[in-house]
Amino acid sequence: MRYEILCTECGRRAEEGEIRCVCGAPLTIRYDLGGGWKNDRRRSITRYSAVLPVKSLPPMHVGWTPITEVSDVLFKMEYLSAGGSFKDRGACVAAQKEKELGGREIVVDSSGNSAISFSLFAKVLGLKARVFVPAAAPQGKKDLLRFLGADVHEIKGTREEVNREAMRNEHYVGHWWNPYFIEGTKTIALEAFEQAKSIDCAIAPVGSGTLFLGLYKGFKELVELGELEQMPELIAVQASGYAFGEKGSEESKLADGIAIRDPPRKKEIIRAVRESNGSFVVVNDAEIAVALMELRDMGFIVEPTSATAYAAYKKAKPKGKTLIPLTGSGLKLLDELLAIAGSQKHRASQRKNLSPL
Amino acid sequence: MRYEILCTECGRRAEEGEIRCVCGAPLTIRYDLGGGWKNDRRRSITRYSAVLPVKSLPPMHVGWTPITEVSDVLFKMEYLSAGGSFKDRGACVAAQKEKELGGREIVVDSSGNSAISFSLFAKVLGLKARVFVPAAAPQGKKDLLRFLGADVHEIKGTREEVNREAMRNEHYVGHWWNPYFIEGTKTIALEAFEQAKSIDCAIAPVGSGTLFLGLYKGFKELVELGELEQMPELIAVQASGYAFGEKGSEESKLADGIAIRDPPRKKEIIRAVRESNGSFVVVNDAEIAVALMELRDMGFIVEPTSATAYAAYKKAKPKGKTLIPLTGSGLKLLDELLAIAGSQKHRASQRKNLSPL
Repeated sequence: MRYEILCTECGRRAEEGEIRCVCGAPLTIRYDLGGGWKNDRRRSITRYSAVLPVKSLPPMHVGWTPITEVSDVLFKMEYLSAGGSFKDRGACVAAQKEKELGGREIVVDSSGNSAISFSLFAKVLGLKARVFVPAAAPQGKKDLLRFLGADVHEIKGTREEVNREAMRNEHYVGHWWNPYFIEGTKTIALEAFEQAKSIDCAIAPVGSGTLFLGLYKGFKELVELGELEQMPELIAVQASGYAFGEKGSEESKLADGIAIRDPPRKKEIIRAVRESNGSFVVVNDAEIAVALMELRDMGFIVEPTSATAYAAYKKAKPKGKTLIPLTGSGLKLLDELLAIAGSQKHRASQRKNLSPL
Repeated sequence: MRYEILCTECGRRAEEGEIRCVCGAPLTIRYDLGGGWKNDRRRSITRYSAVLPVKSLPPMHVGWTPITEVSDVLFKMEYLSAGGSFKDRGACVAAQKEKELGGREIVVDSSGNSAISFSLFAKVLGLKARVFVPAAAPQGKKDLLRFLGADVHEIKGTREEVNREAMRNEHYVGHWWNPYFIEGTKTIALEAFEQAKSIDCAIAPVGSGTLFLGLYKGFKELVELGELEQMPELIAVQASGYAFGEKGSEESKLADGIAIRDPPRKKEIIRAVRESNGSFVVVNDAEIAVALMELRDMGFIVEPTSATAYAAYKKAKPKGKTLIPLTGSGLKLLDELLAIAGSQKHRASQRKNLSPL
């Protein structure tokens, strides 16, 4: 066996296909890295098959998203992916694993993007997809799920309640718990390292933690392999009103993708921040809107949740080359983008009127 | 000078910045290919600067879109681009040229995608964008143009009338006429050749011809450079009701991106088809809808216009490796995709009811 599946809390060795430890904690995968990490010259995640827990990958290109460098920021354009977000990386591995284990159906919960990626790879692999999403998820994302033929269940309530509803079902493989999912998202770090060589800091939005912990795991394996001297500083971005332990702040409405107060992998997230000498940064809707429009001016059409990382960059001002994965496409929620652009324009003209003439 | 700008009809040598010959015909660019075609190892269109008519390129990644191979078809995922379509390639070159010539504004006409790409690169380069689009263009595309800060003029009438209206303005650089635009789109052929090595046939939707003629020009230069032995067979796809010389057919409503009866580069398109031993294929809305849903089942979320090439592939059944650029993202018109999926489902259930039990 190239890898083992371990509980992040009790250390128990779990069986292939387990999504959550019997003790209630999340699982993680640990590799024997003696077999290397790069298999071939192809520029897709198949390149990293040696450190992916599946026999093969679905017949759809995933990965090797481009980087646009602006000043010292490496914007990795994860939204230029078949399903329109970085979640494709995790979903293709998790859906493939389900198929290899003989499953015919997947059940997931999501604020939108993860369900879209799972539904897409379910189609590609011939599986059925049942998805649980908040009733308040952006209409464009719900439309896309239906176009992809998913069986969509809209749940009224918080993101946590959506998760509870989904987990009542057999074949639950959602990204909050699924250890295979993070194996897919870690390839962002492997690629970025190959593309940029030197990375001093990486900034990622934290909702359930699948991107943030993927970056951590990818960089960690590169350190263990001797490819990287030390872990980049990892900055975990949370939306106002949803930060760990935060009370009384106004809840962000724009960052719907990370509106999660108490994710299952919270302890792992905190450990990853500490180990990398990183930090948590909280951003509010005003900061997110400004960052979104600045990203637009650079040519990046992304969703507001993706702009949180750039908003945090502007606050934290890290030194050196900084990796910012731009997580999700703005094309899924154009009406929302247009409304934000309108309100920003309005504010700009108000400021103009107030300035001394 | 590495290149000269020539009239496609009278042969006159034009000046830098001319968009149309004084004789009324379109212009084309001819290179001295002695300086090679690849400049560096970067995987973006900057790699091909030796055969691009600009001094530099805008600070936004363009090109090196992935290929997903399914059976013998090479699906080049052009829709995974910053502006959501292959038009980014032409617009980044054309907008950059305008900037290098000292322009501060660009005026273009478009069914949507080209205007989006021009507006995006106008933002990146600090130019103003005035765009003329059909009033009937998809709402999502018009929303996106406004998000990108373009000055949008909606014109009631055919695509040809939109073009006439736009050309009344100074600083017109639209893709129908602009010779620099095709220099950008030709990089699809250069890349596909490097990615796939062997290409026997290429299929592209033909509206104004900027994709089709770009493929032709790219492959032609590779033949002249001695890299390719012979030009692949080029199949030009037109939508029902809009084919050259066609009369009385029902007009396609789905392929809004190529609803053009009499493009300025019509003669060049016909010559390119002949020279490559290619052909014209006409597809109707029923065929486009079926192709769109089959593409979805493979995991490609594209717009109906993009599906015309796959619909033509199914009709023409070319032999060997076939390149199909998937031109535009479906995420810009999700409501339309959802409506098509609904009607296809309805038809499938009708067929079921009619089948003998």
